[in-house]
Amino acid sequence: MATVPLLTDDQLSPEAAAVFADIRAVRQTDYVNNFWRAMANDPATLKATWERLKAIMGPGALDPLTKEMLYIAVSVANACEYCVHSHTASARAKGMSDEMYGELLAVVGMASQTNALSTAMQVPVDERFRV
Amino acid sequence: MATVPLLTDDQLSPEAAAVFADIRAVRQTDYVNNFWRAMANDPATLKATWERLKAIMGPGALDPLTKEMLYIAVSVANACEYCVHSHTASARAKGMSDEMYGELLAVVGMASQTNALSTAMQVPVDERFRV
Amino acid sequence: MATVPLLTDDQLSPEAAAVFADIRAVRQTDYVNNFWRAMANDPATLKATWERLKAIMGPGALDPLTKEMLYIAVSVANACEYCVHSHTASARAKGMSDEMYGELLAVVGMASQTNALSTAMQVPVDERFRV
Amino acid sequence: MATVPLLTDDQLSPEAAAVFADIRAVRQTDYVNNFWRAMANDPATLKATWERLKAIMGPGALDPLTKEMLYIAVSVANACEYCVHSHTASARAKGMSDEMYGELLAVVGMASQTNALSTAMQVPVDERFRV
Amino acid sequence: MATVPLLTDDQLSPEAAAVFADIRAVRQTDYVNNFWRAMANDPATLKATWERLKAIMGPGALDPLTKEMLYIAVSVANACEYCVHSHTASARAKGMSDEMYGELLAVVGMASQTNALSTAMQVPVDERFRV
Amino acid sequence: MATVPLLTDDQLSPEAAAVFADIRAVRQTDYVNNFWRAMANDPATLKATWERLKAIMGPGALDPLTKEMLYIAVSVANACEYCVHSHTASARAKGMSDEMYGELLAVVGMASQTNALSTAMQVPVDERFRV
Repeated sequence: MATVPLLTDDQLSPEAAAVFADIRAVRQTDYVNNFWRAMANDPATLKATWERLKAIMGPGALDPLTKEMLYIAVSVANACEYCVHSHTASARAKGMSDEMYGELLAVVGMASQTNALSTAMQVPVDERFRV
Repeated sequence: MATVPLLTDDQLSPEAAAVFADIRAVRQTDYVNNFWRAMANDPATLKATWERLKAIMGPGALDPLTKEMLYIAVSVANACEYCVHSHTASARAKGMSDEMYGELLAVVGMASQTNALSTAMQVPVDERFRV
Repeated sequence: MATVPLLTDDQLSPEAAAVFADIRAVRQTDYVNNFWRAMANDPATLKATWERLKAIMGPGALDPLTKEMLYIAVSVANACEYCVHSHTASARAKGMSDEMYGELLAVVGMASQTNALSTAMQVPVDERFRV
Repeated sequence: MATVPLLTDDQLSPEAAAVFADIRAVRQTDYVNNFWRAMANDPATLKATWERLKAIMGPGALDPLTKEMLYIAVSVANACEYCVHSHTASARAKGMSDEMYGELLAVVGMASQTNALSTAMQVPVDERFRV
Repeated sequence: MATVPLLTDDQLSPEAAAVFADIRAVRQTDYVNNFWRAMANDPATLKATWERLKAIMGPGALDPLTKEMLYIAVSVANACEYCVHSHTASARAKGMSDEMYGELLAVVGMASQTNALSTAMQVPVDERFRV
Repeated sequence: MATVPLLTDDQLSPEAAAVFADIRAVRQTDYVNNFWRAMANDPATLKATWERLKAIMGPGALDPLTKEMLYIAVSVANACEYCVHSHTASARAKGMSDEMYGELLAVVGMASQTNALSTAMQVPVDERFRV
């Protein structure tokens, strides 16, 4: 179904295997999802992507749940079916309640609407927004 | 520049004027930005859009700043120049720090990347994400 | 500003000049807009694009104004600034009233919103829609 | 499959049940499609979305079939599988013939092509389109 | 599943049959893929699309494999599931190696990321890029 | 104009300054374009982005010019004005001729068109493309 094989653990190169070990350690689960099994066909990109994702999605000025919700918002706008499913699941695992999810959906829907209206009317940016 | 005139206060229909009064009351500022001045050409859509936006963007299970950041994320993915500027300004006005903004950008960039990779490889959704 | 020069009439190749003559005849105006002046750098693509556009946008089962409005809808969703401006101008020249434009905007905004909501929730297609 | 349960009639809150009753009355069919069953998880957004959709999609300066075709055009550009299916079915139910559909497809395809070409060449907007 | 029937050979109009014959001759295979079987419902658009595709995708200043990879890149960004699958298969048939594909994916992912970052920050275009 | 200041050389943190030095060394020019000056507000993301870009865009199974053209294709589909300009300039600097650029545009336009048509008709993926 994918354009590349989803590699099983025993098909991994040593570099990919090391990344999988780190994914398991960081996420504290033995389960490695299909995205990484597809990415494992190119160990260098796998490693670079995981390392960067790990650095970005951890706690910082924004908490991990807020980051997951931002990830969902982008994935919806980009119409990425896989990403919508995987990050909605991640957000729930990190504590997104039904109320939070409902509000997230409402904001994403509203933004999509006013994005279209602004683009359609080609509204010029207010001077005060350009600082 | 816009495809419709940006209406000044004295060009507003009574229905649009009432919406502008509410925008000013809710936002506690006399400034009404260009989006609404463009929308004012169609008072019914102006009113419906403002009423819904007001209901959605207030405090709830998600705080208003988180909602503004979600709005930025969608606006970026939809390449809406006006919306990126206006909602980045709004998020800053609501307390988004440089650190928070930097993390927001990093998440949006990362999501855009893995969205593309997932779509390119047509990764099948894991059974466990389909609940 | 463009990535290619906008060719003036005296810079056109004979093949491009013939296309410009046809654009002027069909549109009954001497004005040739910037899109075609940019396209003129590649006469073969200019000709293929104009011939196909001419065939598609004329009267048929759908009238030319409806086609222009569909063009606007797509251009908004693709965030094409040039196309939004040029096709909104064309639609107005073909008789789009303020009321029609207001309804067009409302539909485009609504569609953008429910597109996002459907994608976000990954709603499965109803069996009855699959004929 | 969806990220939320598709609610059956007996799982609806009173507010959602009232919306479903109105959908059935307006559409004159007992069938309520999956989008609304997913939306019903958040009755406030369900109600706001339905009320607005009902107001927008009815007859006005544009007829309902034209509006459905505009909806298809946006849904295609946003790559919304659900929306493409549901609004194509709706347009057909409202009288879209094979000829009309063929022309709709041709316009959407052409617009997508010239959108890309305009954006690629960054064609500057003609002064005469900026009124 | 499609919104139109996928026509079998014996359902084709004479004009569509002629296009199918040319597809088979050019591609040197009896297999005609689903996209063309769907397009065959509108013979005029089928013919125009095939003729143009044939002209564009052949050898020129760019080789056919490079063109297929460009096609994949666009298809990913537009989230077109069908196109991603069909053009990835075509690129492989034309000699795209695993290494080439890995690099293609890395570029597409990187571009998606910096596209988002540039749009988010609304970076002004450098004067030297505007020739 | 940007949402962040474009940092001058004397405003850079030591980490950002080191990245700028590397950009200058790799590209063999003193000029550092606006994207990096905007990114410099977040040195960690600047460094990660530059390091990854440098690794991806160099010679490999695909040559650097092909990679720049792929970058243009993605940037067009994502409607990123800055990226279209900067990567078109880069591709030209790496040897993209007018003929190559013309063919690139034709492919991007054609792909955008058939992407839309495939999505509109929801063409099912051929079994033989799923390997």
